[in-house]
Amino acid sequence: MHRYKVIVEYFGEGLAGFQRQENHISVQELLERSIERFSREVRTIYAAGRTDAGVHAFGQVVHFDLEKYHDPYTVMRAMNHFLRPSRIAVVQSELVNNEFHARFSAKARHYIYKINNRPSEIVIDRGRAWHVRKSLDAQSMKLAASYLIGKHDFTSFRALSCQSKSPIKTLTNIEVTQNLDEINIAISAPSFLHHMVRNIVGTLSLVGLGKWAPEDVKRALEAKNRSVAGPTAPAYGLYFVKVDY
Amino acid sequence: MHRYKVIVEYFGEGLAGFQRQENHISVQELLERSIERFSREVRTIYAAGRTDAGVHAFGQVVHFDLEKYHDPYTVMRAMNHFLRPSRIAVVQSELVNNEFHARFSAKARHYIYKINNRPSEIVIDRGRAWHVRKSLDAQSMKLAASYLIGKHDFTSFRALSCQSKSPIKTLTNIEVTQNLDEINIAISAPSFLHHMVRNIVGTLSLVGLGKWAPEDVKRALEAKNRSVAGPTAPAYGLYFVKVDY
Repeated sequence: MHRYKVIVEYFGEGLAGFQRQENHISVQELLERSIERFSREVRTIYAAGRTDAGVHAFGQVVHFDLEKYHDPYTVMRAMNHFLRPSRIAVVQSELVNNEFHARFSAKARHYIYKINNRPSEIVIDRGRAWHVRKSLDAQSMKLAASYLIGKHDFTSFRALSCQSKSPIKTLTNIEVTQNLDEINIAISAPSFLHHMVRNIVGTLSLVGLGKWAPEDVKRALEAKNRSVAGPTAPAYGLYFVKVDY
Repeated sequence: MHRYKVIVEYFGEGLAGFQRQENHISVQELLERSIERFSREVRTIYAAGRTDAGVHAFGQVVHFDLEKYHDPYTVMRAMNHFLRPSRIAVVQSELVNNEFHARFSAKARHYIYKINNRPSEIVIDRGRAWHVRKSLDAQSMKLAASYLIGKHDFTSFRALSCQSKSPIKTLTNIEVTQNLDEINIAISAPSFLHHMVRNIVGTLSLVGLGKWAPEDVKRALEAKNRSVAGPTAPAYGLYFVKVDY
């Protein structure tokens, strides 16, 4: 068996998310179909992150095994051929040893959440950033975010549907940057709970709007109760950027 | 009469360009229609740059006069209301004195051209950057671009349909930057000839591909002949960024 690691980019609009689902087109299904069509082998793929419906990815990582050897560049080209005209593409491909696992070998996952903050319509970035019309105070959001760094019980920021064994995660980095009307929130951790990034962003938005003080985020974290934290920010502002191994 | 200066953002896909045309929807028509609908005044607008079909703008500048006074923020909101659901939005609005002219008062115009340079499909930036699959040498493009800075006869980079009185223009800045597979070309000048940015980018791409030496761009410039320069790069990679007054 030959194990391939591929880096995949996708635009989440209209996709049911990474994981296979009945009655909806998923990234997994389209990738597995493209592998089957060029290799004639039916394979299950494994991904670093099971992104939600609508979430985008610049650097999703996927692995799969093939009986027959193909050089990695050919694998990339062949998959891309059969992925057309979907908005999914393989951007890198390599052979890895059989101990590599896209999900379990991952040491860090990096996300970026994009907010477009201005009163007027969102045009060029429509469907690519969360449009918040009222002015956000990025400085307060930055301070609020700092309370989340480190190892904590993130129950307050965890979807009720989350299947993770433990709510304890370690946020290694969270950075709020502002450039004119664009606010980006970069978040890194070895792993995340379901909806964790979007729930953090939704909560930080309350601080940005002045409805919450930065310290309220600390209180929400300590409450370990999903109902005391903020709303879930929309999927289309979220980008899965990169995985470290 | 009250003169309004508004900054307009648009996504060029599906639009016939800035200027009014029969049988095609233009930015001008949609803007004029939005002004008429809220003010009940029929006005002609004037723009800093008449962008081609498909070209995007972050910072197009437009002015127009209204008999009746409305505060500028109301003008912006009312125009945006009637611009929906088009991909055009007013992002700033102010009153200016009657000597201001969006086109003739402009001191500098700034464009960015985006290239996505990689063998695999373009996904997230589809329709937003020119996809060049073969590897481009950005260093050579940078050197080639430097020959174009300054005051020159740009006949070689001018559309045959260009109506400008003189082919002599002054390029004040041209910068080629690369970040992984993104190559951006930023170009500034007091004013441009028709297709000038796209013809420059198309010509620089020949250098990037190694088909031309950087010095060939200098020779093409000196030839003052459109047929010796490179192709016109596609419209959808071009962004009209900003105007200085």
